[in-house]
Amino acid sequence: MALEVFHKDETLQMRRKLIGQSCRLFFSRDPVKIVRARGQYLYDENGMQYLDCISNVQHVGHCHPSLTQAAAAQMDLLNSNTRFLHDNIVLYADRLAATLPKKLCVFYFVNSGSEANDLALRLARQYTRHHDVVVLDHAYHGHLISLIDISPYKFRKLEGQKEWVHVAPLPDTYHGIYREDHPDPGQAYADTVKSLIDEAHKKGCKISSFFAESLPSVGGQIIFPTGYCKRVAEYVREAGGVYVADEIQTGFGRVGSHFWAFQLQGEDFCPDIVTMGKPIGNGHPIACVATTEEIAAAFTANGVEYFNTFGGNPVSCAIGLAVLDVIEKEDLRGNAVRVGGHLKQLLLQLQTKHPLIGDVRGVGLFIGMELVKDRASRKPATEEAAHLVRRLKEERIVMSTDGPWDSVIKFKPPMCFSIEDAERVCTCIDQILRDSISSNTDSFPSNIYYKLAFNEQFFFNSFNFR
Amino acid sequence: MALEVFHKDETLQMRRKLIGQSCRLFFSRDPVKIVRARGQYLYDENGMQYLDCISNVQHVGHCHPSLTQAAAAQMDLLNSNTRFLHDNIVLYADRLAATLPKKLCVFYFVNSGSEANDLALRLARQYTRHHDVVVLDHAYHGHLISLIDISPYKFRKLEGQKEWVHVAPLPDTYHGIYREDHPDPGQAYADTVKSLIDEAHKKGCKISSFFAESLPSVGGQIIFPTGYCKRVAEYVREAGGVYVADEIQTGFGRVGSHFWAFQLQGEDFCPDIVTMGKPIGNGHPIACVATTEEIAAAFTANGVEYFNTFGGNPVSCAIGLAVLDVIEKEDLRGNAVRVGGHLKQLLLQLQTKHPLIGDVRGVGLFIGMELVKDRASRKPATEEAAHLVRRLKEERIVMSTDGPWDSVIKFKPPMCFSIEDAERVCTCIDQILRDSISSNTDSFPSNIYYKLAFNEQFFFNSFNFR
Repeated sequence: MALEVFHKDETLQMRRKLIGQSCRLFFSRDPVKIVRARGQYLYDENGMQYLDCISNVQHVGHCHPSLTQAAAAQMDLLNSNTRFLHDNIVLYADRLAATLPKKLCVFYFVNSGSEANDLALRLARQYTRHHDVVVLDHAYHGHLISLIDISPYKFRKLEGQKEWVHVAPLPDTYHGIYREDHPDPGQAYADTVKSLIDEAHKKGCKISSFFAESLPSVGGQIIFPTGYCKRVAEYVREAGGVYVADEIQTGFGRVGSHFWAFQLQGEDFCPDIVTMGKPIGNGHPIACVATTEEIAAAFTANGVEYFNTFGGNPVSCAIGLAVLDVIEKEDLRGNAVRVGGHLKQLLLQLQTKHPLIGDVRGVGLFIGMELVKDRASRKPATEEAAHLVRRLKEERIVMSTDGPWDSVIKFKPPMCFSIEDAERVCTCIDQILRDSISSNTDSFPSNIYYKLAFNEQFFFNSFNFR
Repeated sequence: MALEVFHKDETLQMRRKLIGQSCRLFFSRDPVKIVRARGQYLYDENGMQYLDCISNVQHVGHCHPSLTQAAAAQMDLLNSNTRFLHDNIVLYADRLAATLPKKLCVFYFVNSGSEANDLALRLARQYTRHHDVVVLDHAYHGHLISLIDISPYKFRKLEGQKEWVHVAPLPDTYHGIYREDHPDPGQAYADTVKSLIDEAHKKGCKISSFFAESLPSVGGQIIFPTGYCKRVAEYVREAGGVYVADEIQTGFGRVGSHFWAFQLQGEDFCPDIVTMGKPIGNGHPIACVATTEEIAAAFTANGVEYFNTFGGNPVSCAIGLAVLDVIEKEDLRGNAVRVGGHLKQLLLQLQTKHPLIGDVRGVGLFIGMELVKDRASRKPATEEAAHLVRRLKEERIVMSTDGPWDSVIKFKPPMCFSIEDAERVCTCIDQILRDSISSNTDSFPSNIYYKLAFNEQFFFNSFNFR
């Protein structure tokens, strides 16, 4: 198979003509053409290697041969739909069930995280007979019409907030209303959800569900304070609603210590619905909703079939099974603990040297490093984060930002990321931050420097990607 | 790879436990376990062969080796997302553009027909700045919340009709308000859309779009009367809306003579948006929206990125390209013309022998045979259609029904369906209909016979599958 059919310029020209421009490119002024990948490494058309720090979808590493083999073997045998009996779907559901608390034992297979969240919303509404939804500020739950409605990150830029959507503060102890010095931020943030529900009730609204990523990623790689989810779930259930844990970014062992990020909140917390996506098929379009027997029964009781043409087909399930096998066989959760822990330590060390680094947070291979103008005000260093991403690209390291101000450098690499990779990227960050300081000091007052370095076009396109 | 891990009974038991019961099985009282397939043939766990008359998703035939090879080769090289430049997506968009009128030249790749229709709705609304939608009665456009709203087939059983949805009569010249004896049913049915738009305007509603399958399938394998689409498009555009052609069931040469079913309406008709799905990847989850530069530009102008995690990835596009290659190399459109034409002739011959067959309609390998209690009243023969499907299953022919009364036997087989297959299925239908008549005549008054043969449970589950 040819690695390249067109010269990069021609590819870019065709892309601009043929593909909707709403579909953006990384580094739009000088986009990268990737033709090959393996593990945590990407290769451009000239054979240059890039270290990939952000492709959480390619969870077990790019182009893992076990997955190619599993896909090809099943493609050669059968790819049908779920109206015929097949072993793969039940084998796969059974394997997923083993990773979850017992009560999450009924599965629906779909094609994308967005489809999973849309179905979760249908399930929640059908079960509770309530309509309204509580979401976290800055949340992103998908690109579908129904999900833009429950994604403040999107609806603020588009149609605005619907009357049935209630936005709770992001429990961010670095920037939020309750910070790390609060005696019980978990309770305090949960109480904001309770207040929001009470307000909604006063208006006659009924809460169907609370939707939250188990670790808000677009929100800025946020780690929930202890006790938050359990308390929120209590409040939401008291209101007749259900707790939907969006594990699309965070599931499948990314946090290392646990298979699901919601499990970080302790064994006494269990969501009512869990949605899965991105890493589930290592890039193959598959996603899933797990729920309880009661919720599934309520959905069945409406008497209407749920049919998803491609969802749960034998090939998708074969790939899903192979991903689970690789996670286990290669101890990728162990690797996330070891490498993620080391990476976080290295970043904390950098924090002691560079005042720009305001916060380092994360768990396993889900880590955020937040840049600030100064540590007292915690004013987001947005331009500096963009500069760092651009400079890292020159060092052939693919990185991106997140958070409400795009000031959080986010690490969510393939799970085979190594100690050496972590050291390399931290060495580069150290050097870039040192260079920036010296060039700032030597020649530019800080804000002029950034005005020169980042025109709006670059700015708009070089980060802010989820 | 083992063909079977569990005994069929165990698979069924696990399925009932682990998979939401809203996901229904064909022939639920005695479901079929399929472990292998090739071309137009399915094989169960005992190696029994079934002729597949309904899997339009497996468009070029089940498990085509070219597709397995294309998928495996690309999976081994790279599977990333569309934020990196890659040749496959532009190659594929370019190939699709060549099948479409020139003005449909901008593409968005997604994972399912449902995702495509949801995006089409967003595009239409963004471009027109209008909200309301006109749809055809009995239409089905997908399982997402936004699409249930525009699918009378679903919303009538669920939340009911939204105030922004306007339902036009299905232009069905066999059952509808204007029939085959009308001098210009195309104009007459188009005028019903015009009236609906006028009514909507009186209420202050503004029409964003008219959504229709180019050949309504759930509606009963309907062929639009001549001139219908062109007139409707004129009316919709006069109202400031756009015409969305849902080609999810009907595209990619199924009609034989043309690549897209909307092209049956003549060269002077062109939709503003076309959505593609099901056959596009022969079972691999991929789908697409094609639109004009103007509509794409309006969508870009909102300043918000459209990112679809899996959509347009190099593997999906490689498979899409391989499907196009097979359609061409194996002249599957020619085959659809030849075999579809022969099949339709055979069914018309059966119609002369069996009063139960009220209508035979279709084009290429998209054919409906409607069963009626009697030809004068055209009363749908729902139970008889279910009986025929069940008996065909005993003959190892997989068939299904469609239409508002599930009285239409629908043919939409893999495009490699042969003359021999067509003859076999027609011989079986002939025999079954003859047997039914004789058993009816000999022992049962017609309605008692059917009451005995079909209890509600069988009924509910043996057809009505889209």
